[in-house]
Amino acid sequence: MPATDATERPEQPWNRRRLRSTNERLLLDRLRASGAASRAQLARETGLSKPTVSSALAAMEAAGLVREVGTHAPERGRTAVLYAPDPAAGHVLGVDIGRGWLRCALADLDGTVVARSDVRNKARSSGALAELVVATARQVVAGSGVDADQVVHAVVGTPGVYDEQQRRVRYAMHLPGWGRTGLFDRMRAELGVPLEIHNDANLAALGEYAYGVGAGSRLFAYILIGTGLGMGVVSEGRLFTGAHGLAGEIGFLPWPGQHRPERLEDAVSGLAVVESARRFGMSGRLTAKAVFDAARGGSSAAVKAVRLEGERIAHTVAAAAAVLDPDLVVLGGGVGHSVDLLLEPVREHLRTLTPLRPEVAASRLGADAVLLGAVATALDTARDVVFERRSVPS
Amino acid sequence: MPATDATERPEQPWNRRRLRSTNERLLLDRLRASGAASRAQLARETGLSKPTVSSALAAMEAAGLVREVGTHAPERGRTAVLYAPDPAAGHVLGVDIGRGWLRCALADLDGTVVARSDVRNKARSSGALAELVVATARQVVAGSGVDADQVVHAVVGTPGVYDEQQRRVRYAMHLPGWGRTGLFDRMRAELGVPLEIHNDANLAALGEYAYGVGAGSRLFAYILIGTGLGMGVVSEGRLFTGAHGLAGEIGFLPWPGQHRPERLEDAVSGLAVVESARRFGMSGRLTAKAVFDAARGGSSAAVKAVRLEGERIAHTVAAAAAVLDPDLVVLGGGVGHSVDLLLEPVREHLRTLTPLRPEVAASRLGADAVLLGAVATALDTARDVVFERRSVPS
Repeated sequence: MPATDATERPEQPWNRRRLRSTNERLLLDRLRASGAASRAQLARETGLSKPTVSSALAAMEAAGLVREVGTHAPERGRTAVLYAPDPAAGHVLGVDIGRGWLRCALADLDGTVVARSDVRNKARSSGALAELVVATARQVVAGSGVDADQVVHAVVGTPGVYDEQQRRVRYAMHLPGWGRTGLFDRMRAELGVPLEIHNDANLAALGEYAYGVGAGSRLFAYILIGTGLGMGVVSEGRLFTGAHGLAGEIGFLPWPGQHRPERLEDAVSGLAVVESARRFGMSGRLTAKAVFDAARGGSSAAVKAVRLEGERIAHTVAAAAAVLDPDLVVLGGGVGHSVDLLLEPVREHLRTLTPLRPEVAASRLGADAVLLGAVATALDTARDVVFERRSVPS
Repeated sequence: MPATDATERPEQPWNRRRLRSTNERLLLDRLRASGAASRAQLARETGLSKPTVSSALAAMEAAGLVREVGTHAPERGRTAVLYAPDPAAGHVLGVDIGRGWLRCALADLDGTVVARSDVRNKARSSGALAELVVATARQVVAGSGVDADQVVHAVVGTPGVYDEQQRRVRYAMHLPGWGRTGLFDRMRAELGVPLEIHNDANLAALGEYAYGVGAGSRLFAYILIGTGLGMGVVSEGRLFTGAHGLAGEIGFLPWPGQHRPERLEDAVSGLAVVESARRFGMSGRLTAKAVFDAARGGSSAAVKAVRLEGERIAHTVAAAAAVLDPDLVVLGGGVGHSVDLLLEPVREHLRTLTPLRPEVAASRLGADAVLLGAVATALDTARDVVFERRSVPS
């Protein structure tokens, strides 16, 4: 835009209104970032005049965005009313669709989870799974006491990558039929809420950035090791998604198998842990968790399988380090959670594999990373929506 | 910044001057982006008034930034003078320090190379190489007829990564002694020009984005296969450098060797091509180029070595694809230039390795990619410097 003299620009009728809206948003963001404050404090910190602060707060209180939360009595001077954002101004749904579990949380605008349900994913078909998602979400909202029309946004995490054009999920290997066209459109229609779909590892990375060990990292990678293998990358606070949303699909990294090239996922995922344990002599109806439990109990076959898993995770970390140069790599997901057994072997193998050694840490959010990442992502949108749709007197 | 009423903001004394500077920059950028234009055209396209355009052009012409380049006689109306940026308002140096060759170019502000020298790198020590860089750069400037004080910025490309704190290059495996502290400080002092140091693969990627096949790509990776192996990543026009400037150091990707884990560089670089060719039966004083030439001539050992190289490059591309999701991967460097032999085997192996298949293309700039990337990077800074240091009448 060219710079022109202010006098050449006629005063637009909407300028005053937009200015008022900008000031309200500034105050609301300030309250959200650093807590309750009085009118005088807000005026001091934002540079706005006291009358401007007072009328903006009054307007936002009338619109249900801000509420009085108490008073502050300074040593000298008058007692002041403290204001804070009203967390009940809107709610969001976060959903984590996994092979083993379906998790669903309802959170207020402060990000506090007010209702939650974790159910076993026993669905035998993609249609049944979609129905389970809708039923669980409805039940969570119904049980919370929050009006359904107060839910302004939902974010769903799923394995694979959602293709907007084809209106379906691609590359979700471990959920049979999950690539069907229109599944998410159906869920969106039945829930009656705007619904975004994201890759689960990406959401876990965002969750770990918002609430966990990733906070403040310049570039960090969250490696989700569960039934499958995925990675989410957060660069300077923003998701790094690549040219088609497929960045971090490290399950597809070629891995030289014994007879043919395999995918890295086949070597590193929970299924691979079970397979190694069998090869080392364990038997029965094994799960990755059972193998880790046995290793803790001293089973030598299980210890060997865990050591091999550590070596392969180190390979994964080394590959991510060589391409991305993260300052932090977080291990999460079902297998990643057994990090007490894995962290040392991973670090040890990393030393032999590469001179590039990012910090390797355990996920702080554990099994909740995807769910809380979905909530955090939904909040970003919901806070805008709630602010924009308030009625502004002209 | 808080939004405040315009009336609350006192007119600052420097506002008028800053406004004039902003307008001049706007006009200069417009002329640089789309060529010569008349005052009337510029006024129409920028929204500035004709008197504003006239006085800004006059000021920039006096400062040597803009010059008259001819006239335009429309069918109706008066003949108009056409203006364009003066390419001689400043010059930049670009330098590519490679194991085999040292290349140095002097370019004007339009990016036209006005003098250039390519010399064999026969330096036996890092000190000798630094001297060769300085001597070559001086000779290029001296031979160009451009005054030395007209060279406003220099960018040097080198293997490895420059560490600002330690004031030295790290990870430059193929240039012995090149990691010595202070080498570049010495070159900077002797050249008497501000000098930036960048990884060679990163500059090649920027060169290919500015002048080659990368233009318009959303996320592309340039794989530099020469004596060593490196990768530069350009995401939405900007270099993706990672947390410590090490992104794309794919030479360190672990590669499962026959006896011990090797680095990918040992499997893919020009040295690896020579090693495979020997294993398949070639002998003598081999270079990668000689192996490719022999393959073109039908030598079966050479053909086998090239096929193996294609397979390993495909592995490299697949790894980059799984982590980054580029829409384009460009092959360059000494080995990359034999892309006529490599492109088909790479694409073929890629099909068996991964469902993620970015477009794979040959570098358009060939051996000049690093050098032209250095020039393009230096121009970004030089255009700012030349504009900022002009004398502005107050």
